[in-house]
Amino acid sequence: MWAELLPVGRSASSGGYRRFAWNSADAECRAWFEEQARKRGLTYELDRNGNQWAWLGDPQGEGAVVTGSHLDSVPDGGAFDGPLGVVSSFAALDELRSRGTGFSKPLAIVNFGDEEGARFGVACIGSRLTAGVLGREAAYELRDADGVRLPDAMERAGYDPAAIGADGDRLARIGAFVELHVEQGRYLAEDQPVGVASAIWPHGRWRFDFHGEANHAGTTRIEDRRDPMLTYANTVLSARKKAKLAGALATFGKVAVEPNGTNAIASLVRGWLDSRAADEATLTALVEEIERAAYERGERDGVRVELTRESYTPVVDFDGPLRDRLARRLGRDGAPGGVPILPTGAGHDAGILASAIPTAMLFVRNPSGVSHSPAEHAETADCLAGVAALADVLEDLACQ
Amino acid sequence: MWAELLPVGRSASSGGYRRFAWNSADAECRAWFEEQARKRGLTYELDRNGNQWAWLGDPQGEGAVVTGSHLDSVPDGGAFDGPLGVVSSFAALDELRSRGTGFSKPLAIVNFGDEEGARFGVACIGSRLTAGVLGREAAYELRDADGVRLPDAMERAGYDPAAIGADGDRLARIGAFVELHVEQGRYLAEDQPVGVASAIWPHGRWRFDFHGEANHAGTTRIEDRRDPMLTYANTVLSARKKAKLAGALATFGKVAVEPNGTNAIASLVRGWLDSRAADEATLTALVEEIERAAYERGERDGVRVELTRESYTPVVDFDGPLRDRLARRLGRDGAPGGVPILPTGAGHDAGILASAIPTAMLFVRNPSGVSHSPAEHAETADCLAGVAALADVLEDLACQ
Repeated sequence: MWAELLPVGRSASSGGYRRFAWNSADAECRAWFEEQARKRGLTYELDRNGNQWAWLGDPQGEGAVVTGSHLDSVPDGGAFDGPLGVVSSFAALDELRSRGTGFSKPLAIVNFGDEEGARFGVACIGSRLTAGVLGREAAYELRDADGVRLPDAMERAGYDPAAIGADGDRLARIGAFVELHVEQGRYLAEDQPVGVASAIWPHGRWRFDFHGEANHAGTTRIEDRRDPMLTYANTVLSARKKAKLAGALATFGKVAVEPNGTNAIASLVRGWLDSRAADEATLTALVEEIERAAYERGERDGVRVELTRESYTPVVDFDGPLRDRLARRLGRDGAPGGVPILPTGAGHDAGILASAIPTAMLFVRNPSGVSHSPAEHAETADCLAGVAALADVLEDLACQ
Repeated sequence: MWAELLPVGRSASSGGYRRFAWNSADAECRAWFEEQARKRGLTYELDRNGNQWAWLGDPQGEGAVVTGSHLDSVPDGGAFDGPLGVVSSFAALDELRSRGTGFSKPLAIVNFGDEEGARFGVACIGSRLTAGVLGREAAYELRDADGVRLPDAMERAGYDPAAIGADGDRLARIGAFVELHVEQGRYLAEDQPVGVASAIWPHGRWRFDFHGEANHAGTTRIEDRRDPMLTYANTVLSARKKAKLAGALATFGKVAVEPNGTNAIASLVRGWLDSRAADEATLTALVEEIERAAYERGERDGVRVELTRESYTPVVDFDGPLRDRLARRLGRDGAPGGVPILPTGAGHDAGILASAIPTAMLFVRNPSGVSHSPAEHAETADCLAGVAALADVLEDLACQ
């Protein structure tokens, strides 16, 4: 099952995946999902927002237990982020069937469309539309880098965009959603193949515009310069220092410079800050500190600093009773001292759905912590432990 | 004369000039030059490398005195860099004629083509070809950003590229070349409208490649990161600090980041260092210090640093006797304490020709020091003082 999916949408040059919403690699992944459903005699269903469902039991029944994840990738992403959750879902179902357990509730495996947002710039489009967090009108206006609108991209891929929008009835029939995902950090220790999520850290993106003055790099005296590159550089370093002190994260990974010439002092440096912390108060205080450091250095450099918050997502606390039920179930069978409960800094479909239905997440250990990169990896033994844990959890939720 | 040239190739949006080799603004500037020559009864000549000449006296005569500069610009450049030298040359000739002085040697005014290198990435193409510093084959291979080759661009503009190449006979007939240029720094004081150049600082471009590891900005623990943006930022700040201590210049004005995503730790940051100093020993030591600081910080960050020298131009010392003759001539009439003699960090056609013929430069004060920017400026009074100084110098060289 894993082997079939591995080559799809993988770049020969980088070894990374390029499975973007509604492209040909995405279509192959979707065909694979449908095939897995049919092979197991599950009822295949495509919802109005392009998410795929494979049902054991009545899709219209109440209190359904749903598991799954996504199959798309970031540009040059790894093999595990997303697919591990979908593959593990099918494998967990196979495991439960081999145990001979009967199901008391409808069970579904889901592949949410466009989780990474690599094409249209908005993450979790499939789950956002379903939960009504992203409106139909706003979705219709989304365009990719080539100017193709989301509904046109869907149509070109053979899907009908006419019905996209909130799908509250569907959510109302779901009793619990559990998403298994490869961990994207390195918080799980070597003897902890699986963890349960407590929360998703609040996170946001801030754009810093550093306005200086273009000038000749070879003739302008040091004391006459207003070089925004210096202010930017100082802000990058102080963001890292302050984040470390706060036990939080702050990253500058994207920069744009004008005029970006070797022999010209920059007139404008734009830097994007991605910052996350365990709670909103810490995050707010951290960004304020970074902002203050930027202003102070800007004054020394003769550089005007402008700050724009481009996005902000508050903390997501996963359903307490469901989380505890998972931990209890896994703790009994699992590692000494119980299964670890840990937060994550990454967004997920489970984070979107958490506001509408009881939702939980399982993480599978990532030995290097590398993610969103071709080097992303998980050990087979840990993946199998993840399948077993997911099977245990589904048995607890859907079979009693 | 100045007013006619002002609107040519000026961008309505930025107010900066976009006069690039062989584009339509360049053609207008060239037509203007030809018209100025004809209006004064000068012999107009286009040389094999696309440089324009306006001759008073025999173009084939020996020991000619030549003045002039260039009319092209950097992207969004100012009005003075280049054109001030050409306009002042015509104005100085007018001044000499009004003084009624007779000429004992041929006098020429020149407009060197493509000094800024904005289109084909190589500066001073017209003078480099003439001096044989840029070979004919290499020139034929130059391409602009749209892939247009230099000879094709010349041909499209109505010029014959067949004969381009070294023009030693022409240089052999020149006794002295004097280029007047707006100063591009702020070394001339308020009571010093004009200075004489001593040398062009040695300068070079170095590319720093900072190799880290792409990773998820939201989930990768601080201690697991290999973030090249930090190493880059630290190198920017240490370059500035060390340059200041050395009395030299070091600028990072151009950056390229991969993958350059807001939520991704960069895998590669490329930064280009432009550095210049009064002498080659200082420059070499400075770049070595910056390199050492980059390596040291790279080790802390888990980032591999690679350094490539992309270009290097040794120091240019202008002809000593000619420089002293100019200074003596101007000192007698000029400011108390004589005319200042100062080096520059910028490259010029005069710097290219200095290895082949006796060459000197005059600088006109730039009150803000801003250059390569629409804000570049020189006061009218200072420009007129520049014309008078150039007339004095030409009178001294060509009329005795």
